[in-house]
Amino acid sequence: MSARANAIVTMIGAGQLARMTHQAAIDYAITLHVLASSASDPAVLAGADHTVGRPDRYGDLEAAASFGDVVTFDHELVPTALLYRLEEAGHVLRPTPAALAFAQDKLLARRTLADLGEAGFMGKTGIPGDADTDADTLVPAFAEARSARDAYAFAAEHGWPVVLKARGGGYDGRGVHILRSPTETARMLPAAPEGPEPGWVLEEHLDLAAELSILVARRPSGEVASYPPVGTQQEDGMCRELTLPARLSEGAGRAATDLAESLVASLGVVGVCAVELFQTSDGRLLVNELAMRPHNSGHITIEACETSQFHQHLRAVLDWPLGSTALRSPAATVNLIGGPAGIDPIDGCSRALGVHGAHVHLYAKEPRAGRKLGHVTALGSDVEEALEIAREAARLVLAPA
Amino acid sequence: MSARANAIVTMIGAGQLARMTHQAAIDYAITLHVLASSASDPAVLAGADHTVGRPDRYGDLEAAASFGDVVTFDHELVPTALLYRLEEAGHVLRPTPAALAFAQDKLLARRTLADLGEAGFMGKTGIPGDADTDADTLVPAFAEARSARDAYAFAAEHGWPVVLKARGGGYDGRGVHILRSPTETARMLPAAPEGPEPGWVLEEHLDLAAELSILVARRPSGEVASYPPVGTQQEDGMCRELTLPARLSEGAGRAATDLAESLVASLGVVGVCAVELFQTSDGRLLVNELAMRPHNSGHITIEACETSQFHQHLRAVLDWPLGSTALRSPAATVNLIGGPAGIDPIDGCSRALGVHGAHVHLYAKEPRAGRKLGHVTALGSDVEEALEIAREAARLVLAPA
Repeated sequence: MSARANAIVTMIGAGQLARMTHQAAIDYAITLHVLASSASDPAVLAGADHTVGRPDRYGDLEAAASFGDVVTFDHELVPTALLYRLEEAGHVLRPTPAALAFAQDKLLARRTLADLGEAGFMGKTGIPGDADTDADTLVPAFAEARSARDAYAFAAEHGWPVVLKARGGGYDGRGVHILRSPTETARMLPAAPEGPEPGWVLEEHLDLAAELSILVARRPSGEVASYPPVGTQQEDGMCRELTLPARLSEGAGRAATDLAESLVASLGVVGVCAVELFQTSDGRLLVNELAMRPHNSGHITIEACETSQFHQHLRAVLDWPLGSTALRSPAATVNLIGGPAGIDPIDGCSRALGVHGAHVHLYAKEPRAGRKLGHVTALGSDVEEALEIAREAARLVLAPA
Repeated sequence: MSARANAIVTMIGAGQLARMTHQAAIDYAITLHVLASSASDPAVLAGADHTVGRPDRYGDLEAAASFGDVVTFDHELVPTALLYRLEEAGHVLRPTPAALAFAQDKLLARRTLADLGEAGFMGKTGIPGDADTDADTLVPAFAEARSARDAYAFAAEHGWPVVLKARGGGYDGRGVHILRSPTETARMLPAAPEGPEPGWVLEEHLDLAAELSILVARRPSGEVASYPPVGTQQEDGMCRELTLPARLSEGAGRAATDLAESLVASLGVVGVCAVELFQTSDGRLLVNELAMRPHNSGHITIEACETSQFHQHLRAVLDWPLGSTALRSPAATVNLIGGPAGIDPIDGCSRALGVHGAHVHLYAKEPRAGRKLGHVTALGSDVEEALEIAREAARLVLAPA
């Protein structure tokens, strides 16, 4: 991969993650070739080489993959069967289809993690017993749901409300519902069991103290580098704010990092992997989801850490040495989420840059309600100061002109 | 310039400065449109929009300029007459042709600065008298040279050796010669006076304690932001290493910054301007050159300062608020200058990234002796530590595979 005058990485998807990966690729003179849904995708507008096509059409995947030394991903929307087919055709997928399947299917993920927990996984990782983790529970209580009856049975055991999640395809809160009563359940789920796909997962509704994300990078050679835990603040299932460092005891932070690193190694993930964790009010650390790619929660690393998650992802998938994840300064990130019509992000950016210390990143997307248009990061002497700067700048980007 | 959904900046030239400006433009969703000499120019390979053409052909300049809200520059190779013609045609040039003429013509620059010095410019800038500056000398002793006879007369007054510089077009040491004797002079200069262009400038040979660069950004509205002085280490007229902060007394640093800011304001420069200064062994600060664009000496700001020179240049030419120039950490940069054949910068980069703390930037240029292929920056607890890291990584990038 390394002994040549040119390195090309294919990335399936051309959204903001690919856009910022392209920015990082320029530093190393790596060519990023993206599979884009159209020529106005964020990464294409930033100048990444591209093939226009669909991630669920083999010919399009193959066309994009044929440009690259390795194939990696900006999203989880590629059907697993096509991933295996690409691999059989000789393309090097990082992460591998086997690992990606885990990130695509919430039920498979829950089952694998539950099995790991029961097999004493936590004990083997060397996570200290005083770190507020329950040694044989890695995930919230869960069950497969194929009908409303499954949900009633689950609620009888765990109480209302119940969290209902689509097995695949959901992100940013899409595909996640809180069922508060049998009536709400009946509206969402069929009376009788349905076919196997797409299915649903039921989960206990947790009383959360905090949510966090551990970004772990891993190379094929096995080298692993973790970023300090990022605190994530969600609203309607969508991430709104990040803080680094997370508000977390040192013991809990170490336990979360050990857990995330062990999972990434045990699943054989290559590249950056975001392990999203719940911290419950009663002190448990439970795995929410894994994303095997650069992740929204890692945007804060661009300014806050020695090596950004985008540089790190490229280094990991090319099996290059990983960079330092050291924190430069406390930081906060606020996502720019589209609201009412009539805003102009570039004009807003020009105003927001008047806020001392604000770093604005726009994704070149047409503004639309609920759409992530960019993010703002600020460094500060502490997280609170950084958060104040980032919030003020974000408000200005999104303010009507 | 700001109240719109799209901002486009045209940059004349598509080298590494345009390449890194494009990287910065992605953050603000600004489109950078470059005038490139070919589709394999560094900025084009990074994905900047482009027109292929020549900077000395009006039609090509006009074609590129027509894409942008403003026109700015990656080099000084546009004939002044064409700059004025672009401006007359209604294009907004930042900096203006009048300011650029100064950066293009060393004799004009020397004369203007000498006049400013004689007019008591330094006294008016509020530069303290104890700051080791001679209040009425901004530049080394100089004279126009049109024949060898001019050089003999100059040497009779100022002694050998004499520095001979081409009036225009020279950079990275090209067009600069040290004349040590009448014999060397006779080889370089004609016996009889030549026509007015291209001419030469003679300068006294200085005994230098240090060289430094002050990067100043200025908006049309007048806002100015200066970076802390950068120490530059030259070899054969080509910049090899940068250190930030420069090894300089606080008083001298303040004097240099005041001088640079006053010059930039007095010349009405818009955008980033690098003011390169000599510090002589006898304690004088003299202006060497001005570059009205992002500059090699500013590459260190990418990692070392809150706002990179490339973000700052875009903000300045669009009349957006300037960013903080605060130093994050002591830093050093080592330029990657091509040596013997047989090196592969990307392969070298993959090895150099094993040096903890090295930030590698490659320009995607074909390796060639004496060519700037990229640079490496490192942060450290002090400049020496940073320099050690950057040098070691630079050695690995350039080592034969």
